[in-house]
Amino acid sequence: MVPHLVTALTGPTNELEQRILDSMAAIERWFRLEWMEHTPPFYSSVDVRNAGYKLAPVDTNLFPDGWNILTPAMLPLAVQAAQAAIEKICPEARNLLIVPENHTHNTFYLSNLAQLRRVFQMAGLNVRIGSISPDIKKSVTMDLPNGETITLEPVVRTKGRIGVKDFDPCTILLNNDLRAGVPGILEDLHEQYLLPPLQAGWATRRKSVHFKCFEEVSKRFGKLIGVDPWLINPLFETCEQVDFSSETGVEALTARVDLLLTKIRKKHKEYGIKEKPFVVIKADNSDGHMGVLTVRDSKDLESVRHQVLQHAAQAPTAGKGAGKTVFDVLIQEGVLTCERVNDGVAEPVVYMMDRYVVGGFYRVHAQRKVDQNLNGPGSSFVPLAFAESAHLPQPGIKPGASAPNRFYMYGVIGRLAMLAASYELEATDPEAEQYS
Amino acid sequence: MVPHLVTALTGPTNELEQRILDSMAAIERWFRLEWMEHTPPFYSSVDVRNAGYKLAPVDTNLFPDGWNILTPAMLPLAVQAAQAAIEKICPEARNLLIVPENHTHNTFYLSNLAQLRRVFQMAGLNVRIGSISPDIKKSVTMDLPNGETITLEPVVRTKGRIGVKDFDPCTILLNNDLRAGVPGILEDLHEQYLLPPLQAGWATRRKSVHFKCFEEVSKRFGKLIGVDPWLINPLFETCEQVDFSSETGVEALTARVDLLLTKIRKKHKEYGIKEKPFVVIKADNSDGHMGVLTVRDSKDLESVRHQVLQHAAQAPTAGKGAGKTVFDVLIQEGVLTCERVNDGVAEPVVYMMDRYVVGGFYRVHAQRKVDQNLNGPGSSFVPLAFAESAHLPQPGIKPGASAPNRFYMYGVIGRLAMLAASYELEATDPEAEQYS
Repeated sequence: MVPHLVTALTGPTNELEQRILDSMAAIERWFRLEWMEHTPPFYSSVDVRNAGYKLAPVDTNLFPDGWNILTPAMLPLAVQAAQAAIEKICPEARNLLIVPENHTHNTFYLSNLAQLRRVFQMAGLNVRIGSISPDIKKSVTMDLPNGETITLEPVVRTKGRIGVKDFDPCTILLNNDLRAGVPGILEDLHEQYLLPPLQAGWATRRKSVHFKCFEEVSKRFGKLIGVDPWLINPLFETCEQVDFSSETGVEALTARVDLLLTKIRKKHKEYGIKEKPFVVIKADNSDGHMGVLTVRDSKDLESVRHQVLQHAAQAPTAGKGAGKTVFDVLIQEGVLTCERVNDGVAEPVVYMMDRYVVGGFYRVHAQRKVDQNLNGPGSSFVPLAFAESAHLPQPGIKPGASAPNRFYMYGVIGRLAMLAASYELEATDPEAEQYS
Repeated sequence: MVPHLVTALTGPTNELEQRILDSMAAIERWFRLEWMEHTPPFYSSVDVRNAGYKLAPVDTNLFPDGWNILTPAMLPLAVQAAQAAIEKICPEARNLLIVPENHTHNTFYLSNLAQLRRVFQMAGLNVRIGSISPDIKKSVTMDLPNGETITLEPVVRTKGRIGVKDFDPCTILLNNDLRAGVPGILEDLHEQYLLPPLQAGWATRRKSVHFKCFEEVSKRFGKLIGVDPWLINPLFETCEQVDFSSETGVEALTARVDLLLTKIRKKHKEYGIKEKPFVVIKADNSDGHMGVLTVRDSKDLESVRHQVLQHAAQAPTAGKGAGKTVFDVLIQEGVLTCERVNDGVAEPVVYMMDRYVVGGFYRVHAQRKVDQNLNGPGSSFVPLAFAESAHLPQPGIKPGASAPNRFYMYGVIGRLAMLAASYELEATDPEAEQYS
């Protein structure tokens, strides 16, 4: 089920959208059967791009923040989903520890933590927030703009368990993507549930593995509803150890970019799509030092190379990775976004808890183009509200017909990406038997 | 989790309410563990009475109608809960058949069916409505005030399965309380899921069995949160084969009423409660011909006797039971309701799907008193809305403190009654091993 949220989309539903709406019963059944075989990630958010002719996920976050952006009306859905998740994992749960990002003095991020705390408190758990940051040596209480306070406590480890002072959780919820590596304090916790598992962190995760899994999911889904998987699947290539510090360092990348652009061009020709193909390059391990860059032609790579170097040098998350010039690169088919909110280019972000879509918002960037990454300084968020009751007759709509749930297709794409993430986490589970 | 709905209650939280709010984490965990052992009814609604000093369920409906009364904002919660329920029962489900009440030309009831259909359609099922009424010999399509239409089709049986023309459901949802008896067409359906099971129908069900189970639940819950179970449990007695046609026919009933009034009086004395005790008498099998009557003193029974006779003779559901004067009677401790909506006496009704509270409304009756049954001609419904975000500072409330969820306690009482119903259905399951 996907809540009926108001999207910015207007105009008639296109063929792909209509196919998805018409196949709702088959799609929901298929998801139900998939979730019998696969465990959904505990929570996730997916950035979706809708080019009209194509609708695809471009990023799947397994440590979603931004929960504070969702409207208050979404809270009960999130709580109900959280409760369903907890019931499956640890029905006897009493105490939940949230482990936040280490750099947590940002009010916006703290408000996200407060919202997550509220969700799990309302699900009936005692919740504390335990930081693994070396800077948090004792409890720190901070005020939030809405009058709430939030207390970060240092995580302590005792034998096989972690907790905070006088608080022994059975479940630990990571809201920290571990991109700096897995700290020892989180390793070998055999007696506690750690969610999501460590291999979901960016120390292990690779975007290319995720999109390889998504390719598999999109093939199966395409077969289910009778569409070409390409219509929902962004093509990709990878290029390892690209050294952006010299022209020769990006030669292999240039070839791969050309290869991918050729593939996309072929598809555009097949469908009579007029838009010029482009690709997006980003670090396969999500390293923020590289940035996310749009490449419209392999001839542009020299200028892109300089942008990467500049970005890497100026990266605000400077530290041990600053100045790095060598990256494993994901080259992803660019998907235009045709959604606009208040004249700004927009893309929907779908939030999920367990297998349920619980809300969403538009990420909007007034200064960026339809083929650029919108996630960066200057972006803003427009929460999606529930659609007004479609039960009442509306002008121009024939009696009894209710407005279609345009958000439904985004919820489907979000869940397909979540399903791919569950394949991915199975494939990378160090304790699993060989994945074949 | 219980959604935060606006209640009519104002004033400080009393001791019982505060105890329930303070014990939220323990209560939610307890429910989670109970649902590991017991299967919740597929759906249910519970009438709750709040006397201030006492808060108790007075009726538990296992075939709830009135889904159309809930606000549209509740729909996503109901859908999510329905999906969780379907996943557990029959993940491969495609088709669901709703079997409605037989007298279904009432627009209000048809709107309820339309809303149930919507819930399960949004959960991803194909839904049809199949009537077992002898009056429905071919498909009938009726218009609803909101422009929707609803089609009732005659149920057909083929070997061990039922369905409607060209529609073979795997799950059958009864919205028919079978008070006229279980029709043969529903018996021995071994290959389909029939929800709720046949023993939930009033042909089998007895209120006294439900309240016996509730007594057990209330004792365990009382121990959990450290309160006298009486504070949530309405005492009761039964009296079989009461013949209201003669004075001598109600002698045994008089004695039982006296006995129960004495028990309540003792409890009132223990707690210093000033209110005069009263009891409510009703048919143990929910037979509408008897009515639901308030008895303040056993001396009133002669007048009550005449009311029952009058009610039985005039009962609008006249038919084979009209003119009946002998009933098995449940004598239930009366619980005042101190809630008022628009100056009318009101009682909350809590709606649940699977284990989740998904909404509620107030049943209001302007012409009735605080110690009377509100469910009758002249009653109206006031849907409960979600509370406005309690995250923002509110005048007079200290920063960071959010308004308590006053609806929470109603959700707890509703779920306790639902748990009692699950004990009850286990105890009356004809296929279960001996219940001890």
